[in-house]
Amino acid sequence: MTYAMIGTWRMAYEGLCKGMDLLSQNGKSADAVETAIKEVEDYPFFKSVGYGGLPNANGLVEMDAGFMNGDTFEVGAVMGISDVKNPISIARSLSHEHYNSVLVGTGASQYATLNNFERKNMLTERAHKIWEKRRKEIIEKNLSPYDGHDTVGMVSLDTFGSLSVGTSTSGLFMKKPGRTGDTALVGDGFYVDSEIGGAAATGLGEDIMKGCLCYEIVRLMGTGMTPQTACDKAVYSFTKKLKRRYGKIGEFSLVALDKSGNWGVATNVEFTFAVGTEAGKPAIFIAHPADNDQTKIEPITQEWLDAYSKRIKAPID
Amino acid sequence: MTYAMIGTWRMAYEGLCKGMDLLSQNGKSADAVETAIKEVEDYPFFKSVGYGGLPNANGLVEMDAGFMNGDTFEVGAVMGISDVKNPISIARSLSHEHYNSVLVGTGASQYATLNNFERKNMLTERAHKIWEKRRKEIIEKNLSPYDGHDTVGMVSLDTFGSLSVGTSTSGLFMKKPGRTGDTALVGDGFYVDSEIGGAAATGLGEDIMKGCLCYEIVRLMGTGMTPQTACDKAVYSFTKKLKRRYGKIGEFSLVALDKSGNWGVATNVEFTFAVGTEAGKPAIFIAHPADNDQTKIEPITQEWLDAYSKRIKAPID
Repeated sequence: MTYAMIGTWRMAYEGLCKGMDLLSQNGKSADAVETAIKEVEDYPFFKSVGYGGLPNANGLVEMDAGFMNGDTFEVGAVMGISDVKNPISIARSLSHEHYNSVLVGTGASQYATLNNFERKNMLTERAHKIWEKRRKEIIEKNLSPYDGHDTVGMVSLDTFGSLSVGTSTSGLFMKKPGRTGDTALVGDGFYVDSEIGGAAATGLGEDIMKGCLCYEIVRLMGTGMTPQTACDKAVYSFTKKLKRRYGKIGEFSLVALDKSGNWGVATNVEFTFAVGTEAGKPAIFIAHPADNDQTKIEPITQEWLDAYSKRIKAPID
Repeated sequence: MTYAMIGTWRMAYEGLCKGMDLLSQNGKSADAVETAIKEVEDYPFFKSVGYGGLPNANGLVEMDAGFMNGDTFEVGAVMGISDVKNPISIARSLSHEHYNSVLVGTGASQYATLNNFERKNMLTERAHKIWEKRRKEIIEKNLSPYDGHDTVGMVSLDTFGSLSVGTSTSGLFMKKPGRTGDTALVGDGFYVDSEIGGAAATGLGEDIMKGCLCYEIVRLMGTGMTPQTACDKAVYSFTKKLKRRYGKIGEFSLVALDKSGNWGVATNVEFTFAVGTEAGKPAIFIAHPADNDQTKIEPITQEWLDAYSKRIKAPID
């Protein structure tokens, strides 16, 4: 059996490489997903996930994470959790519980303490500075406060034929306290079935959840569609429907992987992602919506990567 | 155009009658759903919803509610909210927001205060007594603490052809602080599309969410199935799949209503529900899973209703 892994955004890459290393040595898909997402959570310059994630309107970093086991359908999730180093590990731990497997707010944070998960103040000096700057801009320029909502989502397939999915985010920058999106909602932000495949979402959670997009992509793959066809069909038809019925639509992007290691993505905005297969080393790609409800996918350029590295570490004035 | 309404459990009945009154006078489906669920939330002897709902392991009543507009796909939801009289009204209010439409924990409670929703200590003396008794039993008899998880879910169709769905619960009795189920998760606990129909769920949320059952039932109705066929097909196939893959399964029940006012239910346990149509006055029925993946539905007996009335008001010794 083969192995493979896909993750949302350029930020997924280093973690995905670690996950792929595990998978290539017959590691479990759940371990690959957790290892990969922890790597993203721990890196301080990714400003929408884990440590260094941008805070809510009150300046507090509140995080959401979800995990699903494609063999058993076990689901674990946390929403609005604070001061924990790795929300994905808590979500995975919760997935083993038959009761109380989804926890929100202070209850989620208490679970982390009671079960000896590492507590950490997740607000970096850099994130604090960005927050203070944004607060001023909002008042001075009367801007809409909301900006940035990139979830890391990973789907992995191991050599035993098992699939897992995980997601983690600090959510919408400047969100109201307690706000959650699609990231920790099963079917909306993630879904996986080892007999079919898995999917994960990133973008404006308030709109992704209206379409139950991850469940729908997995369901479509179950009818025999390739992950790419399933992503295109689910995402572009829903984009049209939501524009017609709701009148507006946020940005979002979906990734999918099937039980044979084939992958696909669809997006209504410029979107980078990382993918690795048994045949192909981990690599970063860039996707755009194209004509005829299809997705244009190209390898990332060194120029793009250099500009990204510079941007995420640029001084905050 | 016709009108109709369906709600989970016998407890839905009085609220559904009020909702049907509104609908018969060309009221809006969203108003019918909110009015009906508020009635259930306000009644102190329904022990799994709103005032009088059973508390969590710490003795605090933490509630979840969801609302969806089938015309626009607007979704609002609260999870782990405390000390608010009507969670359904807060969920509906949040559905008008494009950002921050789903709130958890203390953030949700703060939103209620800031927006002038009525605050109320939702713990009744009776619920407190039941909790104390249960605590003792758990210690003395080494019982599993979890028992009772009945969500009120209502789907309504108005004479303008609009469908809405709402859900509300105090969740699993003795749950861990912060635990949430499917009730406030769109696609899992509720879903509606005015061009097709809507569905709502009740039961062990941890298992319902594994199948994204409300989205699936609405999707199946969209392929031309009646609500009854869609419920049977979604619920019984998922029940088998979950038993095979997860090894165990909680109790759950689903109700559905389509855009023509046809309705259906499916359940893996004895399940009561209320339904009203333009042709038929509101009535209570009882459903059981039957052979061949079908559902046996019968009118409720006076005997059952009398025993129920007695049971919900029986002294707590």
